[in-house]
Amino acid sequence: MLPVRRKEDRADHIYRVAAEVMCQKGYEATSMNDIADAVGLTKAGIYHYIRGKEDLLFQIMGFGMDMVDEDVIAPAKEIEDPEERLRAIARRHATRILEAGGAVTILLTDDMHALSPAHSRAIFDRQRVYLQFIKETLVGLAAQGKLRDINPSVAAATILGMICWLGRWYNSNGRMTAEQVVRDFVEMVMHAVVLS
Amino acid sequence: MLPVRRKEDRADHIYRVAAEVMCQKGYEATSMNDIADAVGLTKAGIYHYIRGKEDLLFQIMGFGMDMVDEDVIAPAKEIEDPEERLRAIARRHATRILEAGGAVTILLTDDMHALSPAHSRAIFDRQRVYLQFIKETLVGLAAQGKLRDINPSVAAATILGMICWLGRWYNSNGRMTAEQVVRDFVEMVMHAVVLS
Repeated sequence: MLPVRRKEDRADHIYRVAAEVMCQKGYEATSMNDIADAVGLTKAGIYHYIRGKEDLLFQIMGFGMDMVDEDVIAPAKEIEDPEERLRAIARRHATRILEAGGAVTILLTDDMHALSPAHSRAIFDRQRVYLQFIKETLVGLAAQGKLRDINPSVAAATILGMICWLGRWYNSNGRMTAEQVVRDFVEMVMHAVVLS
Repeated sequence: MLPVRRKEDRADHIYRVAAEVMCQKGYEATSMNDIADAVGLTKAGIYHYIRGKEDLLFQIMGFGMDMVDEDVIAPAKEIEDPEERLRAIARRHATRILEAGGAVTILLTDDMHALSPAHSRAIFDRQRVYLQFIKETLVGLAAQGKLRDINPSVAAATILGMICWLGRWYNSNGRMTAEQVVRDFVEMVMHAVVLS
């Protein structure tokens, strides 16, 4: 796993805005000028933060995985009971995506092929760690006799998909608040896998 | 909605193989030469079937939505009971993705921004029809008192995500058969939304 790369809030802001631009236009069609314009920096200024477009994409994805590590995995690890831990994973990650917007999550799933092989491997390894964490939580549920008659690998992949999909359809200007969506979402995740 | 575009099996084969190439390399990085090579046609030969790369992407997406119309929506419409209809949607669509490979489905979610505005609108309209069909099925469940206390729009979008995600992680060379995965998957979808 590569070291945490986040340096400062200014860089975080660039990552978030750049992710939105890349999502809208597509990674290939986005130029460094587009990004400089969107974040209000000169093209020279933006090269203070990043080396180039591929490096920026890698930084954005690392930023996204840092969020998962800090806001989802670390606090969920503190919870021993697998059912409560799963609920915390679903609630925390869903909340994070709805609050921050889905662009970073969308890039993390759609644009892996745009990374260099070394960068792609680094991000993929971090994603695999997260998937494994979800799977272990489900195996813990099974050990307590609380998992439905489903394969934990299938269930973990499906739950990750439910989470990652949120950023694609949730409209923060729509009628439902993020809290309402997260509540219904967590209800679905829990009933999908936990015996009632 | 645009007319159905599928002409023949040869074209279907090109769509499927081209989708796999585009998924692996990324749409922008894929050339018409790459696609001609993969399907075993000369560059001149491939232009018998398609006008250019954007048109090909649009044809592939239309092909994918034709599959949804023919293999999922049409047979599910024959089923009146909403619970059984939902089960048919989940089972049929999951089976289709695992059998055909996930590449077409992945392009349908990842590369909408590469389409011209008119093409993007045409595909988006078809996707919206499908999402609406799932939502109406859930509203039907609610009318029978069988839907969990969740918003049908949230549930429909989440179910669509569960389905579309399948093609991203299922490995047809892995230990689980498609039948086993579909079985567990349908179990999760049904319990996520249907009161037990």
